[in-house]
Amino acid sequence: MTENSDNSETVLPDPWRACVLTLYPQMFPGPLGESLSGRALGEGVWALDAINIREFATDKHASVDDTPAGGGPGMVMRPDVVGAAIDAGRARYPALPIIYLSPRGKPLTQARVRELSAGPGALLLCGRFEGVDQRVLDARGAEEVSIGDYVLSGGELPAMVLIDACVRLLPGVVGERASLADESFEAGLLEYPQYTRPRVWEGREIPEVLMSGDHKRIAQWRREQALALTRARRPDLLADEEA
Amino acid sequence: MTENSDNSETVLPDPWRACVLTLYPQMFPGPLGESLSGRALGEGVWALDAINIREFATDKHASVDDTPAGGGPGMVMRPDVVGAAIDAGRARYPALPIIYLSPRGKPLTQARVRELSAGPGALLLCGRFEGVDQRVLDARGAEEVSIGDYVLSGGELPAMVLIDACVRLLPGVVGERASLADESFEAGLLEYPQYTRPRVWEGREIPEVLMSGDHKRIAQWRREQALALTRARRPDLLADEEA
Repeated sequence: MTENSDNSETVLPDPWRACVLTLYPQMFPGPLGESLSGRALGEGVWALDAINIREFATDKHASVDDTPAGGGPGMVMRPDVVGAAIDAGRARYPALPIIYLSPRGKPLTQARVRELSAGPGALLLCGRFEGVDQRVLDARGAEEVSIGDYVLSGGELPAMVLIDACVRLLPGVVGERASLADESFEAGLLEYPQYTRPRVWEGREIPEVLMSGDHKRIAQWRREQALALTRARRPDLLADEEA
Repeated sequence: MTENSDNSETVLPDPWRACVLTLYPQMFPGPLGESLSGRALGEGVWALDAINIREFATDKHASVDDTPAGGGPGMVMRPDVVGAAIDAGRARYPALPIIYLSPRGKPLTQARVRELSAGPGALLLCGRFEGVDQRVLDARGAEEVSIGDYVLSGGELPAMVLIDACVRLLPGVVGERASLADESFEAGLLEYPQYTRPRVWEGREIPEVLMSGDHKRIAQWRREQALALTRARRPDLLADEEA
């Protein structure tokens, strides 16, 4: 907020926008209404609009899905209904990229989170059942994004994950900006181990180097720890780095 | 539920248990209270217990965190407070594996989800701030699990993701069991594209083969599509398969 002492019109920056297309709009903001993201939502740093896909059904049963063409179990979300919902979201927020949360998508990375966070926001399509008719994804140019190699009951939790990751990078959301520079993936490494008081707990001491006050030694130790941990748990990250 | 026509004592199976250690117990069940997981929670297929870590703080300000040893931005969760919270969870549910949700962890996979889902449940520790003192993770043998290569404001959304992934595999939660066999990662491949009515939408037709009624051709086409998609988007999954 800026001081408005001269009574001229104050133009606040546009908030980062999350427009969520879902069959469960009542899930939102949910966990995003608490803590860091909740405070930022209250302060207008970001804005949330949850659109109910079912409002775009056209038959008397408000059907949103039908059986898969070619057979198979489950139900698939209809292209006409989902297409109309996407178009309603695009009409409200024409600048937002369309993202479909799906285990078939490209894995979400911190680099993509940074890009999205620096942009105007995201139009997030949440699937349910066996997913969405492929034609609507092709026709609307939806980017398929996966939050990980597992299957969930719908796209709502992945949408929340993507929003939370982006919102915490918005200016002013995390107190100290330096805190963002050290964390996992920012240097292609997992983060070094952390310790705090008490100095001795259950007979376990904080590593001596961290109590030395020697900032150079501490930085070197942390870098070594981060490298060793990454080598042990995520050699793929180091391979990416060296490629 | 079983019929209890002879009035003998009916022993229901133990539910799958999620015990969540968090500074935000009010976030739960949240999205997990809706849809598939919500219905299964109501039916007692799984059970949820959210324990507030702050209840284990010992000073008059109910502090749960302190500054990082060796310096640096942010705050680290104290080992004594977190240790006491874990011990309270373990006392209630001694059989549960202890999982700490963290971007430093081993990536969650559908294979690990299947294992956890087949077990008694999970004790899920949710970090905030710069994370948890390393000593408490070492001392309590916590398994560090990451839901993806991005950073979130806390472990609560990852805990929900892990719970949702496990709960939908519990018997009776997803209607047709066959629906689980075809989906992404179950055969080391991303899932083939899906289509449903209408047959023509915005001039785009459902692929002819899916309307042919020839189940053998349909199965072959789907396999080819799944392979091509996986090769294009996730060659790493095929490399794993061939390794």
